[in-house]
Amino acid sequence: MSIKNMGEPKRIGILTSGGDCSGLNAVIRAVVNCAVDTYGWEVLGIRQATLGLMARPPQFTKLEIDQVDSLLTAGGTMLGTTNKGDPFAFPMTDGSLCDRSEEIIAGYHELGLDALIGIGGDGSLAILRRLAQQGGINLVGIPKTIDNDIGVTEHAIGFDTAVNIATEALDRLHFTAASHSRVMILEVMGRDAGHIAIAAGIAGGANVILIPEIPYTVEHICHKIKERQEKGKNYCLIIVSEAVRTHDGENVTITNRLGQSRYGGIGEYLADKIIEHIGVETRVTVLGHIQRGGTASPLDRLVATAFGVAAVNLIAEDKYDRMVTWQNRQVLSVPITEAIAQYSAVDPNGTLVKTAHGMGIYLGD
Amino acid sequence: MSIKNMGEPKRIGILTSGGDCSGLNAVIRAVVNCAVDTYGWEVLGIRQATLGLMARPPQFTKLEIDQVDSLLTAGGTMLGTTNKGDPFAFPMTDGSLCDRSEEIIAGYHELGLDALIGIGGDGSLAILRRLAQQGGINLVGIPKTIDNDIGVTEHAIGFDTAVNIATEALDRLHFTAASHSRVMILEVMGRDAGHIAIAAGIAGGANVILIPEIPYTVEHICHKIKERQEKGKNYCLIIVSEAVRTHDGENVTITNRLGQSRYGGIGEYLADKIIEHIGVETRVTVLGHIQRGGTASPLDRLVATAFGVAAVNLIAEDKYDRMVTWQNRQVLSVPITEAIAQYSAVDPNGTLVKTAHGMGIYLGD
Amino acid sequence: MSIKNMGEPKRIGILTSGGDCSGLNAVIRAVVNCAVDTYGWEVLGIRQATLGLMARPPQFTKLEIDQVDSLLTAGGTMLGTTNKGDPFAFPMTDGSLCDRSEEIIAGYHELGLDALIGIGGDGSLAILRRLAQQGGINLVGIPKTIDNDIGVTEHAIGFDTAVNIATEALDRLHFTAASHSRVMILEVMGRDAGHIAIAAGIAGGANVILIPEIPYTVEHICHKIKERQEKGKNYCLIIVSEAVRTHDGENVTITNRLGQSRYGGIGEYLADKIIEHIGVETRVTVLGHIQRGGTASPLDRLVATAFGVAAVNLIAEDKYDRMVTWQNRQVLSVPITEAIAQYSAVDPNGTLVKTAHGMGIYLGD
Amino acid sequence: MSIKNMGEPKRIGILTSGGDCSGLNAVIRAVVNCAVDTYGWEVLGIRQATLGLMARPPQFTKLEIDQVDSLLTAGGTMLGTTNKGDPFAFPMTDGSLCDRSEEIIAGYHELGLDALIGIGGDGSLAILRRLAQQGGINLVGIPKTIDNDIGVTEHAIGFDTAVNIATEALDRLHFTAASHSRVMILEVMGRDAGHIAIAAGIAGGANVILIPEIPYTVEHICHKIKERQEKGKNYCLIIVSEAVRTHDGENVTITNRLGQSRYGGIGEYLADKIIEHIGVETRVTVLGHIQRGGTASPLDRLVATAFGVAAVNLIAEDKYDRMVTWQNRQVLSVPITEAIAQYSAVDPNGTLVKTAHGMGIYLGD
Repeated sequence: MSIKNMGEPKRIGILTSGGDCSGLNAVIRAVVNCAVDTYGWEVLGIRQATLGLMARPPQFTKLEIDQVDSLLTAGGTMLGTTNKGDPFAFPMTDGSLCDRSEEIIAGYHELGLDALIGIGGDGSLAILRRLAQQGGINLVGIPKTIDNDIGVTEHAIGFDTAVNIATEALDRLHFTAASHSRVMILEVMGRDAGHIAIAAGIAGGANVILIPEIPYTVEHICHKIKERQEKGKNYCLIIVSEAVRTHDGENVTITNRLGQSRYGGIGEYLADKIIEHIGVETRVTVLGHIQRGGTASPLDRLVATAFGVAAVNLIAEDKYDRMVTWQNRQVLSVPITEAIAQYSAVDPNGTLVKTAHGMGIYLGD
Repeated sequence: MSIKNMGEPKRIGILTSGGDCSGLNAVIRAVVNCAVDTYGWEVLGIRQATLGLMARPPQFTKLEIDQVDSLLTAGGTMLGTTNKGDPFAFPMTDGSLCDRSEEIIAGYHELGLDALIGIGGDGSLAILRRLAQQGGINLVGIPKTIDNDIGVTEHAIGFDTAVNIATEALDRLHFTAASHSRVMILEVMGRDAGHIAIAAGIAGGANVILIPEIPYTVEHICHKIKERQEKGKNYCLIIVSEAVRTHDGENVTITNRLGQSRYGGIGEYLADKIIEHIGVETRVTVLGHIQRGGTASPLDRLVATAFGVAAVNLIAEDKYDRMVTWQNRQVLSVPITEAIAQYSAVDPNGTLVKTAHGMGIYLGD
Repeated sequence: MSIKNMGEPKRIGILTSGGDCSGLNAVIRAVVNCAVDTYGWEVLGIRQATLGLMARPPQFTKLEIDQVDSLLTAGGTMLGTTNKGDPFAFPMTDGSLCDRSEEIIAGYHELGLDALIGIGGDGSLAILRRLAQQGGINLVGIPKTIDNDIGVTEHAIGFDTAVNIATEALDRLHFTAASHSRVMILEVMGRDAGHIAIAAGIAGGANVILIPEIPYTVEHICHKIKERQEKGKNYCLIIVSEAVRTHDGENVTITNRLGQSRYGGIGEYLADKIIEHIGVETRVTVLGHIQRGGTASPLDRLVATAFGVAAVNLIAEDKYDRMVTWQNRQVLSVPITEAIAQYSAVDPNGTLVKTAHGMGIYLGD
Repeated sequence: MSIKNMGEPKRIGILTSGGDCSGLNAVIRAVVNCAVDTYGWEVLGIRQATLGLMARPPQFTKLEIDQVDSLLTAGGTMLGTTNKGDPFAFPMTDGSLCDRSEEIIAGYHELGLDALIGIGGDGSLAILRRLAQQGGINLVGIPKTIDNDIGVTEHAIGFDTAVNIATEALDRLHFTAASHSRVMILEVMGRDAGHIAIAAGIAGGANVILIPEIPYTVEHICHKIKERQEKGKNYCLIIVSEAVRTHDGENVTITNRLGQSRYGGIGEYLADKIIEHIGVETRVTVLGHIQRGGTASPLDRLVATAFGVAAVNLIAEDKYDRMVTWQNRQVLSVPITEAIAQYSAVDPNGTLVKTAHGMGIYLGD
């Protein structure tokens, strides 16, 4: 049953890329436990995603068991991360964009790495793969994203925790909404996909769920609020994905970050319109970065640990250019190209949409 | 040991007034258990604070044990509440203000109440007392406020839960701040008092705590951020009370609600100034109504239950015009006038300020 | 998009059977919301599993939306349940066994039910199906079991919450074990399957995981403890499934319930043997019924809600003798016979076993 | 506002003694932050309570800010602890008892310590004080004990977290008890004091609370169970302190540890008696070491941090032989002798007992 002493000792790198989330440290812990303790390899933790390989000298820390021992319950990533700076068009201080891919590739080789484990979402994995193809990097990918928009895996690291936090927020808003007879709007993350909103919305008992995949009207939202009032329910819980657009098609949350909208985000827009239409007291909560942090849920920790071990096992078998996936409580792997290709939005004909309809939740037309 | 069969059977009313918080339902449950089951009295739950007594017929529900059985873990208040509408200057639909105090007093007598338990903050209790004095209402007060600004009680219902939720938010932001080398600002409630901010700030490991009681400068905040960077800590956690003012003395959160500020709140103002001064990536989370909701903490439930029983016991002894208090894990009571008079802000020479200083936290000058 | 007004109005029954778990109330809530509000049907909640149909008159409550509104976060089952009394061999007060199946079938018809939703594990579903076949009951099954041993569904209701609670217990024991240099043993439920133990063990960082599917030796456990001590880790976390047997093949937990073992359970046996072999201070925690209770996790609530809606939709389509399943975040359905046939133990060659090996966890030989 | 540069630089020691609990690491973190960063002193963390000073060379670790940075949310104590081995009668390997106090005192002086911060319960603090008096140790005490039995402080570190965990267990048992119509008994810690049981019992809605301070009869417990059944409540929640004795005055939990009782603990005894008397299905959960572990509650973290800073401030003022206390949200200090002298059991005439009576809870006669 022992899997020790397979093949030559290796030196592998690991980096976390893109927005942080819960469970990244659990992956790092698993990789180090499996690679160092079980296989007897060396693991270098690359700092700040690809920036650590771009730096001269490369920025890294040699990871030992003792360092990762307490990481299971720690949120975030001990290696740091960044979601800025495409290395193929890297923003220079003078404002110009510069292809710095060769510096990263050189960093990989300078460290004498046999393989690299890259933990990221689809964007990060696409960049890492391009670097790998260009520079002979033996890459294994691990999917993480609270957005859960990578189609080939049932579960990306961080999603379950983010849904838990959003659901807990709805649980709390439910009580205060009912006490004050208010409409409560919760704006959650998820980028272009409504996975967090629809999962937390159903689990948390929202009455209205708005996701980018399904158009809505303010009139229908107001109708729902009034309909509930007629049944003696003087409050309404609305959960909305950050990328839901206004009636005029504006992505308020994004434009607001650029300073161009009069609204702080789509939640604020909706509150304004509801008050304008029917004058019901409405409050907005933007959950924000709380969704990314915190101790990972047991499921995220389980999947993260299984992914970390599986990624090391792939390297032991010299299988590269693949990403691990979670399907039916088993880890499999697919070519990274396939992983990148299958973007997954909420399926308008899928189970969760049907469930929302069956529950009488308004989620668009 | 039995306390049953004391005196004549009574009919008492109970109402919750002002902003909702966790633990109100636990009080209601305790009052019903003690009054109905132990004393054999009748309890009428008045709906929507004093609005329920103002309405004709008065809006209430007769409360039985079975109804309150599951209330221990329920946030909010099953009776509803409102923090609008001073009955002595009640906003009428035509915009005028009208003294409607006599209607409320008439409602109390119309219901044949022997006494009224009013759960509220200092504002609500002041109004209830004025009504009681004017109209012969036998009033017992129970302090609740997440702001914990009632000086005569160590603990008002809802405060512990609010601190827990704010601390949990800091715990989560800590990880994502460190992962992305960011400044994270958490804006919390508390009205004019910094109790939530300083308690959660210390418990949650904030590096900067800003409260209305102590002036600060943006320069010193930025100095703290830089000082941490020099020690290799590329992130900073800031917690700020909603009522903290800008450098120019503006209460941004309040003015913003009135639509007059360019900032969404003090957190946004600070982020803007930090970026302007030192260009460090900064994110803001406004915790909002999440702080009010949710299952009450065991301490809030314990105090709420003890307050509910003690209030009923006061009525059994015909002791009125008093508010229950929590001191050294015991319930006492004081005249409501005394309770209203002692507003409690954070003591600049108190333990928590000293603790923050000892921990090297910046909390103003 | 409306699914209202499909077919004739129906009257359906719902019952929960077998050991309780978190998420049952969320199913009941979903069934009532979908059947009553969306389809306009009537829903009768049968009390105490099949006992409610066996009683004369049948024991039930007509379920309305208002009754189930707050059930989303309530653990257990509002209908009550029992895991005693096979109706085909029902224990009578005189000690004899009696076939009372016809009484249950008569109860179903007496209530004029068009269909019955039965929520249970494989044992309960097998009994319900036999009743359905015998007596013309239109049955739809929903899988629930913290043991997660129903092979055709990725997820049975209650499992995720049970794993969360067991993981949280490990998190807590971890700290106290390390502080006192102790071996800590956590005994968890799961009947004949090790799913809870292996999932929580990996997610919670156990060093030894013992499941019924894989044999172990006390010597190897002690070796693991010593090996850790040599690396400076003076503590060890062991998680063990209740059905793991002693070295002599005794199922201590079961025999103990019958009063025949000198040990309170397998955890106590292991502690005794570890102390006997190597004299290391060892403590046991038997998690017990805490695993069954509590607010369901968001995932359990999501699946429960999706199952409830899907079961009602199956009835709307007059599809019976089927059980809903969860696969890749979608609800499907299979014949109940198929569901009962596929018992799922932990796969000794599956992902979780490989993960445990890769992490250096001892989980048997 | 700066409190830096007060007096001469010092070298201080810190140790944790007795049973571990949540919040110890938060004290260590606070002491290091305040002493090292604010005062510029040196802090030596002594390993395994006084055993670290008894060892030659003394076992310690020099504590730096970076080491304690992540301790705020970590349960247990990074220094290790022990509740065995009174140094004045230390158990030697040959079974004899030996006074080893001088070795500990010598260890203190060998390390060149100016002062020692000892974190412990009343037993540990009594021993530490005796050592201090005998050997010229400048001692400052910090109270910690989940039992909360130190009379001079409203709050000892670890108590709030233990109550939270016990309350959460009751919340969970409540649902499963109601679903299965069972009596559920929860056995909690607390040694000779019933503080955890009565606080968690009230906060968690127990129907029967048994504490060592108040005698009970099995008949009255059974009467309560029957009384509830008559009101349609077919379940009952009982919380019992570990030191509650049997009807015959036996302390089952203690004798059981010594292998002399037929019961695993008082919970098991009660279950046996209830079944014997009235035949109601009864289950027992022994919460065990879970109560000690886990992330400290915000209140425990707040108090722990305030205590750590205050202890360092006392040393800065050369005030020794004192223990810090928490009173009305402020830290004070008292002579250690006074702290040891005031043992605090649950007051049979105090608020919590009155509250339990008012709620109709049976807690003895």
